Amino acid sequence: MLSEALLVSAPGKVILHGEHAVVHGKVALAAALNLRTFLLLRPQSNGKVSVNLPNIGIKQVWDVGMLQRLDTSFLGLSPTCLFARVTEQGDVSVPTLEQLEKLKKMGDLPRDRAGNEGMALLAFLYLYLAICRKQRTLPSLDMVVWSELPPGAGLGSSAAYSVCLAAALLTACEEVSNPLKDGVSVSRWPEEDLKSINKWAFEGERVIHGNPSGVDNAVSTWGGALRFQQGTMSSLKSLPSLQILLTNTKVPRSTKALVAAVRSRLTKELIDMNQHHLNALGVGHNSLDQLCQVTAAHGLHSKLTGAGGGGCGITLLKPGLEQATVEAAKQALTSCGFDCWETSIGAPGVSTHSAAAVGDPVRQALGL
Amino acid sequence: MLSEALLVSAPGKVILHGEHAVVHGKVALAAALNLRTFLLLRPQSNGKVSVNLPNIGIKQVWDVGMLQRLDTSFLGLSPTCLFARVTEQGDVSVPTLEQLEKLKKMGDLPRDRAGNEGMALLAFLYLYLAICRKQRTLPSLDMVVWSELPPGAGLGSSAAYSVCLAAALLTACEEVSNPLKDGVSVSRWPEEDLKSINKWAFEGERVIHGNPSGVDNAVSTWGGALRFQQGTMSSLKSLPSLQILLTNTKVPRSTKALVAAVRSRLTKELIDMNQHHLNALGVGHNSLDQLCQVTAAHGLHSKLTGAGGGGCGITLLKPGLEQATVEAAKQALTSCGFDCWETSIGAPGVSTHSAAAVGDPVRQALGL
Repeated sequence: MLSEALLVSAPGKVILHGEHAVVHGKVALAAALNLRTFLLLRPQSNGKVSVNLPNIGIKQVWDVGMLQRLDTSFLGLSPTCLFARVTEQGDVSVPTLEQLEKLKKMGDLPRDRAGNEGMALLAFLYLYLAICRKQRTLPSLDMVVWSELPPGAGLGSSAAYSVCLAAALLTACEEVSNPLKDGVSVSRWPEEDLKSINKWAFEGERVIHGNPSGVDNAVSTWGGALRFQQGTMSSLKSLPSLQILLTNTKVPRSTKALVAAVRSRLTKELIDMNQHHLNALGVGHNSLDQLCQVTAAHGLHSKLTGAGGGGCGITLLKPGLEQATVEAAKQALTSCGFDCWETSIGAPGVSTHSAAAVGDPVRQALGL
Repeated sequence: MLSEALLVSAPGKVILHGEHAVVHGKVALAAALNLRTFLLLRPQSNGKVSVNLPNIGIKQVWDVGMLQRLDTSFLGLSPTCLFARVTEQGDVSVPTLEQLEKLKKMGDLPRDRAGNEGMALLAFLYLYLAICRKQRTLPSLDMVVWSELPPGAGLGSSAAYSVCLAAALLTACEEVSNPLKDGVSVSRWPEEDLKSINKWAFEGERVIHGNPSGVDNAVSTWGGALRFQQGTMSSLKSLPSLQILLTNTKVPRSTKALVAAVRSRLTKELIDMNQHHLNALGVGHNSLDQLCQVTAAHGLHSKLTGAGGGGCGITLLKPGLEQATVEAAKQALTSCGFDCWETSIGAPGVSTHSAAAVGDPVRQALGL
């Protein structure tokens, strides 16, 4: 166990493009975001292990003796039982849900801390026990982790946390060496050590997320930008540093539901997609957005027709649609100041008619 | 010259998809729209030719004798001079701009009727002279044309007008036979006659538009739906009749400018396109639209990052951007209730730091 304090940091990530396309086999590009998580690890001799997460107002202290007994009884029984499976990322053990439940109970984690907060402590406990188990005795230490990253905003804050935990614990236990030399202000680990840090960080991510893609921890470990497609990742060489504004709308969302919605969208609602593609080409207009919104409120799908930038739009009226719905949509469109016709397409071409065959408005207009 | 009155109609069109893609070599689909233009032609014996267009409040009367002299002197001088060029659509004569100017002056068209109104009369005069020139004497007739189609809304109203003119004049001059038999209410022309009607209608479109694609007159002539790509058209077989709501936002636009903007868009502003594609996938959110609008107002381009449906967005800050612009955008975003960070991407991965190497907020948070 190192004797000096360790200060490590790891970046968050943003997806530059392909966030949904990647689910369907296309390329996505993720870049490290220069909002970072910082971890300060101070070796202690007070027989305590304490973790302080000021961002979420959590502080937990364990007795090393208790953890030692827990650890011993736990790992001692059958290390290959607790840390059995070997992942595709290498020789790192993978916790099962059952093992995590057991650890949660034994680790004396407060029951009222559900969700990410409890998971952050559990990830620490898991990595602490798993990484430090090679030590003769578990180390006493004090850890503070603070982040510039907002949690739950899709910016990889849990991965940055896991990467910091893995880097600090592996270094403290001398599984990897501390690259920071005297008089140097910032250092990074050599490639082999980064691989080890990334593997353990991925395990931390699994504790928190269940089934992470591994992209967030990789970006946080190596920085720069990563290209990923169908499970394989590669670093982008010579990425220019790009300045950005990052904005959090603070509107919560479910990634799972959004991914499912995209899958369903890809097989239907083609009119909406077509309209959005035309918007993407810059030929939309506020009036056309309004048209789409007004008809969407009645369950109908619209797109511009023609050059766009205003002009006309069409709204499909599927067979069997209630006439009341059509009337309501027409009324809503008319009250936007739009002209609206209920008509059909696929009409007959040029025709000749008897005078009796045309309607009253036509007869009147033509003086028939 | 037929002795009975003729009543013909022709439909407008809507583009179902591919309105801009077609310019770049992709397929577009146009369908006949069941809003129609009606034309009533009544043979007269008063030595007059009159055209009445009640939609635009135009009525013009010519003296057949004057037109006959005009026609004779004009065509008599050199028919191959006035109607010289042969188009790719067949053996139909093509007016040059110079010839049209001459015709305008000679046809006594009112000088104060610029734009489409004057062009509608000019197209009539051109088709009347060109189609009826094979008659020993030009016919006296009365014509009323009335349309259900709004003009200038991209719905092919001028093509429907040209198709009606061509069908009525060709039938009146017995260049094609009248397909309407006694006791029948609606009839269509045989394929050969439709080809001839379409050719002349295209000439009418050229008078009005200069360089039309030929799609509008083809859809109006044959009805149903047409697939077109790189100048070739084919009819769609067995198109179901689809009910639609057609809405005119009444926002005027320039097709030419929009087509040019699409061309330019295809080579830049990829962030905007990416954002629209994500919207097309249904993972947008009002808050993200707001983010894009607010930054666009400062000339900046944004997209969502991550799963979408809210969450975070990124805005590219190009090198050399004025800091005042960045500050204004940040302020605008903050006043929407969003959190906003000016940061960079392509950041270094996990690092270890000396205590002196981190900023004050980090030192404070970690208790350093």
